[in-house]
Amino acid sequence: MGSEGELLAWIARRQRSSELVRVPGGDDLAGLAWPGKELLFVGVDQVLDGVHFDSKIHSASDIGRKAMNRNLSDCAAMGCLPAAALATVALPNGIGVEYAKDLYLGIERAAAQFDFPIVGGDTASWDGRLVVTVSIFGRSGSVRHVTRSGAKVGDGIYVSGPLGGSLLGRHMTFHPRVALGRELASGGPTAMIDLSDGLSRDLPRICAASEVGAIIEAADVPIHPDATVLAARDGRSALEHALHDGEDYELLLTSPVERPGLHRIGVITADARILLHDGEGVQPLEPMAWEHSF
Amino acid sequence: MGSEGELLAWIARRQRSSELVRVPGGDDLAGLAWPGKELLFVGVDQVLDGVHFDSKIHSASDIGRKAMNRNLSDCAAMGCLPAAALATVALPNGIGVEYAKDLYLGIERAAAQFDFPIVGGDTASWDGRLVVTVSIFGRSGSVRHVTRSGAKVGDGIYVSGPLGGSLLGRHMTFHPRVALGRELASGGPTAMIDLSDGLSRDLPRICAASEVGAIIEAADVPIHPDATVLAARDGRSALEHALHDGEDYELLLTSPVERPGLHRIGVITADARILLHDGEGVQPLEPMAWEHSF
Repeated sequence: MGSEGELLAWIARRQRSSELVRVPGGDDLAGLAWPGKELLFVGVDQVLDGVHFDSKIHSASDIGRKAMNRNLSDCAAMGCLPAAALATVALPNGIGVEYAKDLYLGIERAAAQFDFPIVGGDTASWDGRLVVTVSIFGRSGSVRHVTRSGAKVGDGIYVSGPLGGSLLGRHMTFHPRVALGRELASGGPTAMIDLSDGLSRDLPRICAASEVGAIIEAADVPIHPDATVLAARDGRSALEHALHDGEDYELLLTSPVERPGLHRIGVITADARILLHDGEGVQPLEPMAWEHSF
Repeated sequence: MGSEGELLAWIARRQRSSELVRVPGGDDLAGLAWPGKELLFVGVDQVLDGVHFDSKIHSASDIGRKAMNRNLSDCAAMGCLPAAALATVALPNGIGVEYAKDLYLGIERAAAQFDFPIVGGDTASWDGRLVVTVSIFGRSGSVRHVTRSGAKVGDGIYVSGPLGGSLLGRHMTFHPRVALGRELASGGPTAMIDLSDGLSRDLPRICAASEVGAIIEAADVPIHPDATVLAARDGRSALEHALHDGEDYELLLTSPVERPGLHRIGVITADARILLHDGEGVQPLEPMAWEHSF
């Protein structure tokens, strides 16, 4: 058992310095000197016990890392550089200060990979389950950001790595594609998104924002070995896992020029539908990935 | 029952425009053009069912309003102007889209009071209890921000309103002192904080950050009528409620010059202790307010 005060003091002592930080965390708000010529990118992502992780299986530091890395994957998708973050935790009563510190260390280590500070946050305990929320602040640097809304008819559709089966473990341990996102962004893609909810759910987001459609070539979709392992277990095909499983955290982008090193999986069309071309012909690619419903 | 997609589309349609917003919410991150001559203030605050509100008693829109207003109270304490926010909710399974919309409307109306946009957020559902988290971005404008760390020996200690008994209802319905915070900040206080955890817990935060102590004059502490009502019920004194209850959301500040219109309740001392002077003499003012412990 320990107090919030002890935890907050421990967190405060661990704060990294940054050229941006003018008022460090520990006050009512942190103050940053933002370089005005750069856009400020902001986002937030929460992970919930029983939904995004299982506290009975996953370690505190793995949970913290995932909370941060999901936000870093959003930075990758915009082509921006993470610059600062806030970490918020709702801790189950009685979980202990050591658990909270491990959680924080997981968040912190994920941030340290990209050398930016955690400038504050919020800590509370309750009789509910564990919630970890990270708010992220990214900067554009010298690279133009990429939205979801610029895909053009005839653009190739590319993905940065093999898909499917992340539930076997990659959903906790993935490496956010921040450096790749920067590199890809500087090559002028027309649209980009990170694959958090599955290709069949995230591709329609690009298409809706860009007012276009798409045809995916089933034979060209890169299939992760984990998708094959899962397929052998559950009777679905490895392709189905690659198309519909979530939490790949690879980048999906559209580009009018060839992108060497990426997997080209289809083409943007004027027809607003999203189609899959496989050995049996062409049919609508319907989302089957998980969606929150309440 | 409804889908996350329906809720997100509804939220996206409600987005206010702002001169700052370059990439509106709905993409992986929102993009803001930050005026580089102004500091960027960032913070986050969560409200948890059963801790900060009770979903069996309080309405969805009151819960949303409180989540936003706690963040606005932090802006008030820094003397900054709220400029944008992110809204994150973890919804109990089955709670319904209408409930989620009411929650969002509460958040949004609190923001509308100060004319800034909600530029994104995160929504998920789970088999846990309701959590609402708001991340806030404030700007300094032409006013110098105020931290907790500048209190000087001999400064007067001031509070912006009567204290105690907020559990009778004010903890849900308070008005964040944003305009007052701006006005006070421009008058050069040496330190400022908002009273979220109670005078006996928040005053030590100023003293610790400033490396000073304080003496509070019991007779000068303004007591809210709600403190008197609670005192009659529970046998504690109204003064105890004023000193130790949390969630007043008034401003506590230190100043070398008189601050008309505020309540002067004590003085900053070189002695690092925090003392209370009442009819029985001088004794340490120990925190009795609620603290998270786990």
